[in-house]
Amino acid sequence: EVLQSIREVNENSSVHGFIVQLPLDSIHRIDTEKVTNAVAPEKDVDGLTSINAGKLARGDLGDCFIPCTPNGCMELIRQTGWRHVLYDIDISRSCVPKCIDRLAREIGLLSNEVELYGKTKAKVHLEAIDRLRIQPDGKYVVVTGITPTPLGEGKSTTTIGLVQALGAHLNNNVFACVRQPSQGPTFGIKGGAAGGGYSQVIPMEEFNLHLTGDIHAITAANNLVAAAIDARIFHEATQSDKALFNRLVPLSGGHRTFSPVQINRLKKLGIEKSDPSTLTEEEITRFARLDIDPESITWQRVLDTNDRFLRKITIGQSPTEKGYTRTAQFDITVASEIMAVLALTSSLEDMKHRLAKMVVATSRNGEPVTTEDLGVCGALTVLMRDAIKPNLMQTLEGNPVFVHAGPFANIAHGNSSILADKIALKLVGPEGFVVTEAGFGADIGMEKFFNIKCRYSGLRPHVVVLVATVRALKMHGGGPSVTAGMPLPKEYTEENLELVEKGFCNLRKQVENTKHFGVPVVVAVNAFKTDTEAELQLICKLAKEAGAFDAVQCTHWADGGAGAVELGKAVQKAAEAPSNFRFLYDTELPVVDKIRIIAQKIYGADEIELLPEAQHKVHLYTKQGFGNLPICMAKTHLSLSHDAEKKGAPTGFVLPVRDIRASVGAGFLYPLVGTMPTIPGLPTRPCFYDIDLEPETGEVIGLF
Amino acid sequence: EVLQSIREVNENSSVHGFIVQLPLDSIHRIDTEKVTNAVAPEKDVDGLTSINAGKLARGDLGDCFIPCTPNGCMELIRQTGWRHVLYDIDISRSCVPKCIDRLAREIGLLSNEVELYGKTKAKVHLEAIDRLRIQPDGKYVVVTGITPTPLGEGKSTTTIGLVQALGAHLNNNVFACVRQPSQGPTFGIKGGAAGGGYSQVIPMEEFNLHLTGDIHAITAANNLVAAAIDARIFHEATQSDKALFNRLVPLSGGHRTFSPVQINRLKKLGIEKSDPSTLTEEEITRFARLDIDPESITWQRVLDTNDRFLRKITIGQSPTEKGYTRTAQFDITVASEIMAVLALTSSLEDMKHRLAKMVVATSRNGEPVTTEDLGVCGALTVLMRDAIKPNLMQTLEGNPVFVHAGPFANIAHGNSSILADKIALKLVGPEGFVVTEAGFGADIGMEKFFNIKCRYSGLRPHVVVLVATVRALKMHGGGPSVTAGMPLPKEYTEENLELVEKGFCNLRKQVENTKHFGVPVVVAVNAFKTDTEAELQLICKLAKEAGAFDAVQCTHWADGGAGAVELGKAVQKAAEAPSNFRFLYDTELPVVDKIRIIAQKIYGADEIELLPEAQHKVHLYTKQGFGNLPICMAKTHLSLSHDAEKKGAPTGFVLPVRDIRASVGAGFLYPLVGTMPTIPGLPTRPCFYDIDLEPETGEVIGLF
Repeated sequence: EVLQSIREVNENSSVHGFIVQLPLDSIHRIDTEKVTNAVAPEKDVDGLTSINAGKLARGDLGDCFIPCTPNGCMELIRQTGWRHVLYDIDISRSCVPKCIDRLAREIGLLSNEVELYGKTKAKVHLEAIDRLRIQPDGKYVVVTGITPTPLGEGKSTTTIGLVQALGAHLNNNVFACVRQPSQGPTFGIKGGAAGGGYSQVIPMEEFNLHLTGDIHAITAANNLVAAAIDARIFHEATQSDKALFNRLVPLSGGHRTFSPVQINRLKKLGIEKSDPSTLTEEEITRFARLDIDPESITWQRVLDTNDRFLRKITIGQSPTEKGYTRTAQFDITVASEIMAVLALTSSLEDMKHRLAKMVVATSRNGEPVTTEDLGVCGALTVLMRDAIKPNLMQTLEGNPVFVHAGPFANIAHGNSSILADKIALKLVGPEGFVVTEAGFGADIGMEKFFNIKCRYSGLRPHVVVLVATVRALKMHGGGPSVTAGMPLPKEYTEENLELVEKGFCNLRKQVENTKHFGVPVVVAVNAFKTDTEAELQLICKLAKEAGAFDAVQCTHWADGGAGAVELGKAVQKAAEAPSNFRFLYDTELPVVDKIRIIAQKIYGADEIELLPEAQHKVHLYTKQGFGNLPICMAKTHLSLSHDAEKKGAPTGFVLPVRDIRASVGAGFLYPLVGTMPTIPGLPTRPCFYDIDLEPETGEVIGLF
Repeated sequence: EVLQSIREVNENSSVHGFIVQLPLDSIHRIDTEKVTNAVAPEKDVDGLTSINAGKLARGDLGDCFIPCTPNGCMELIRQTGWRHVLYDIDISRSCVPKCIDRLAREIGLLSNEVELYGKTKAKVHLEAIDRLRIQPDGKYVVVTGITPTPLGEGKSTTTIGLVQALGAHLNNNVFACVRQPSQGPTFGIKGGAAGGGYSQVIPMEEFNLHLTGDIHAITAANNLVAAAIDARIFHEATQSDKALFNRLVPLSGGHRTFSPVQINRLKKLGIEKSDPSTLTEEEITRFARLDIDPESITWQRVLDTNDRFLRKITIGQSPTEKGYTRTAQFDITVASEIMAVLALTSSLEDMKHRLAKMVVATSRNGEPVTTEDLGVCGALTVLMRDAIKPNLMQTLEGNPVFVHAGPFANIAHGNSSILADKIALKLVGPEGFVVTEAGFGADIGMEKFFNIKCRYSGLRPHVVVLVATVRALKMHGGGPSVTAGMPLPKEYTEENLELVEKGFCNLRKQVENTKHFGVPVVVAVNAFKTDTEAELQLICKLAKEAGAFDAVQCTHWADGGAGAVELGKAVQKAAEAPSNFRFLYDTELPVVDKIRIIAQKIYGADEIELLPEAQHKVHLYTKQGFGNLPICMAKTHLSLSHDAEKKGAPTGFVLPVRDIRASVGAGFLYPLVGTMPTIPGLPTRPCFYDIDLEPETGEVIGLF
């Protein structure tokens, strides 16, 4: 019967590979080798095929198959009878998650520190940090990766797998801290992002859809600022100074009174007055006119939707706006500075300050115009007051996970929130582990994790986990190009030690990058089925020679926490090793020097070249007093250089910086290396064609 | 000391009027007449000034003052010491709300039917309807009003006040069902909308801000459709039929397979095939090309923000969109058809069907193009799967409230959800009362409540409560115009029986409108302090003569439920009276006839006039098979006619219909009478100038 089922799946054209899952007791009655051999070779496309027994501790699924497409994504085929075809969402659903209030109690949260959002999600109050003030922090582990293929090399999955291993399998208090994914790509081409296979955050449909509304709150807050900017320009353009002032400080019972946010603006202008009637005409003009230069506006509207037609638009074309049109754009919500603020803030008060000093434009005489000047900063804080509380969910094996903030990894810093990490570090206690993930490769996400996130948080990591794959190293070694949606060339499915060895230069460089910060690095080789033992061992050997504290294979995608036990042990040891954390640069250095240090030390560039717009911004921001902010490079993640085609560890190149922007509230300058798309589009056949809801059960189908 | 405080408030220019609140025991030690007389006459602007003793049963506030602006909005002034200045938000906060899970238990919900969202909000599962299937429904009361002044006459406050009266004061099971307000106006000019004074939904900041994210879900779903429309037009314009088909039905393992939503499109096209390889070339073209006429697109993008610069925009101007630009617009989210669907749906399955048949445009050969044709309808259902569950909150006196859906009252039907009403009617039981509110005056909100909402729900109301005020009747009687933000002319603050009597024609007409539907009507005269007993009694007398079942004064704003006990008793009696519900028109009548019936019978028009665009739409929609939908008039709420300036009960006019649009998923056609603004703007000094968060306590300040 099993063999018959395998044959059916073999012949099913929409299944590209699969895992066969047998009940424990079947080992005795089934010839497993026969089962293995029954799998058609062409179904063994991506290392995901294997046979497992008795792994589904939770739920009662019987035998099952986990089919997959060549690019690692899942396609859903529902089947009836004894055989279950499993996808990420099926695995996610196969576990009955613990009630989230039980999990909250288990990890030591008090009931008044937890706000339930249904049965599987909760928000955690920041008061927990205060209560646990004297509790020493746990061990802090950041997961990063080598320069990836476009398919991704499994950082999120490794983060969850490692936490599962350190938890139930190695008996530690653990916490995973991950980013909330944008909803746009979920309906576009990417699908969900909750880890995968047996290393997932569950329920994945809650994780991937609204969650508790944090991203929606950012959309609302961001767009209130945008509406305020254009409305203000309009009102200033159509009113005299006096009329403007009279409206901004309205007569009420014969008197005018400044609101507190207006007093702050007066202070910024150096006008130490609080009675509106005492302002001189010149002061009235300075106070009432922000005099925004429309050309200088850097604040964009946002939507959490892949809407390519909003990349460039003209606004204000209704007759009611009297001809005050301008060119504008929408970005995806996670690219909003408010998302970066959420990720980098350390308290409600700090968030309030950051939200008030965000610079949205420059006035015609060169002054930065802030959200406080617009009077909108208090409302932003109010809109974000729930979003600041980290969201508690769980892994497939029942470990706690904070899902909180998901800033873009190019124009922002691509790391989950400081607050979630801080609460988690207190909750696990000094012997416990908090594992967090940095977006993209180590040259981007990890560099920003250290130089931006750790700088603002004051937290010091104990271990870096660097995820590598045979596939990615072969690509760096000169293998054919890897494209999402296309079958992998045979170089990737057959042993090729030469390609692995040639491509190792990328891993060596990324290990070296880690060592700039003085933190021990453990290389995690995320094994696929087609990888040979010789290839995997070669990587481990070379990684150790290159200075990694340790290098181990892991199989958590297929095996859950059990597949990352060796990685867990290595991380435990590394956390005891001496660490000597240091930043890569001093923020007081000139802007250009900071960029050059990153380009030379991390990317391997010979020099940097600032194009005229970037040079202008260096002067402008330095003059405006923002020159001492850390640097957040916006660069492709597909190469150590600025050219996505340059694989391996390129040298001898000059890094061109096209422009520089400032996220003053979040607290960084972001140099643009190349053109960064800030809102994705929808393909001809978006993911949503497969997504539906089963009205009888309320189950989501087709979400991967 | 009290007098000193009153003098201070008298002199405080930002306080326009106030209520003095004294502790019970102070009656003996304070000369209340002296206190009353101490209130400066100019502070007595809007009938809101009065003196109360011992009313604050909940909380321990001591003495307090409730100041207000002339337009009934509150302005916040925080004061220290023994004296508290109270605003809506302060009153809201002065009560410690019951834990929402306790309230849920009290009203008979099972714990697995309730999803907590923090401690003061919960979502209620639709399974409750099934469980209570055999339970008879309670009494169904709809609150509507006469044609209002721009300040509003207190329908929401009356809804909450009546529920409070029927509940704790008259010992009935009760439920209020109200709309969720748009967040846009909260930060613009309007402030919050949770009722007011001592008849509020609490906590009002939760009510007015994100709530549980339903409106955000609508924004996400609506804009996914918009992105899908433009992306599809773009992909069709840039690909051959064959390439388009191959991408829409991709090769996967050597095979092509239609997704279920594509099979539905094939069926609609009359192509009864399920194997992609068997389609003829002509069928491939018909299937793959929606061939949307860009000029015909009626689907707009939305934001829950007052962003006037998005009223008319040009999209697609980035080079990546290859010149496919077009003119488009954003509406406020509550104007989305998806909001109307949410309000009118009766189950998850019904919502799925409605979301699939929404028409977004017409193809070049005149066929309606739906969300199902775009393949996006399943994703919409997934995005809306939490929003469909009604949100449970409570009144200031602890009665249950469902806050669910808030469709625009002009281009949509302006009533809260059918599902909330249905669950509430089961929960209160046959002797209990569910009070719901219809937006705008009886000519709009109530007419749509009966002809659209009741038609789809099958529910039959027992009583109509028609809210009237002395102020509005005086306006209809020829009083000077009433403008938000300006002090009321003296006609409104001094007795003037003649104006009241002359303006009564509007109330008479609205009573008559109610009687078209065969339901008993109770007139609730919402009393302000400046109203005289003679004025109030005159209205009650005339209303009863005009055929109202009863007419009573009420003071729930100042007195909470105690102020609406007489109203509650009248409603109880009316609910026992014979009712003979009937619709105003048969939906099978021609579109023009249905519009004419509403215009003549409800508005008092002589005739209607269809402008050419409207005539064209009558033909188009009739041809497309939508001619049998009910009618949702988009007309000003400030007059019974189409002209906001025509007060009283105008006659002898011809109602011009400019255009007609279709909300096929929601299930109505909406004729446009005049121009309807669908996204508000921000004034020079928006409300947000006063809104802030106190970081120490997390309290929201400045939200009214």
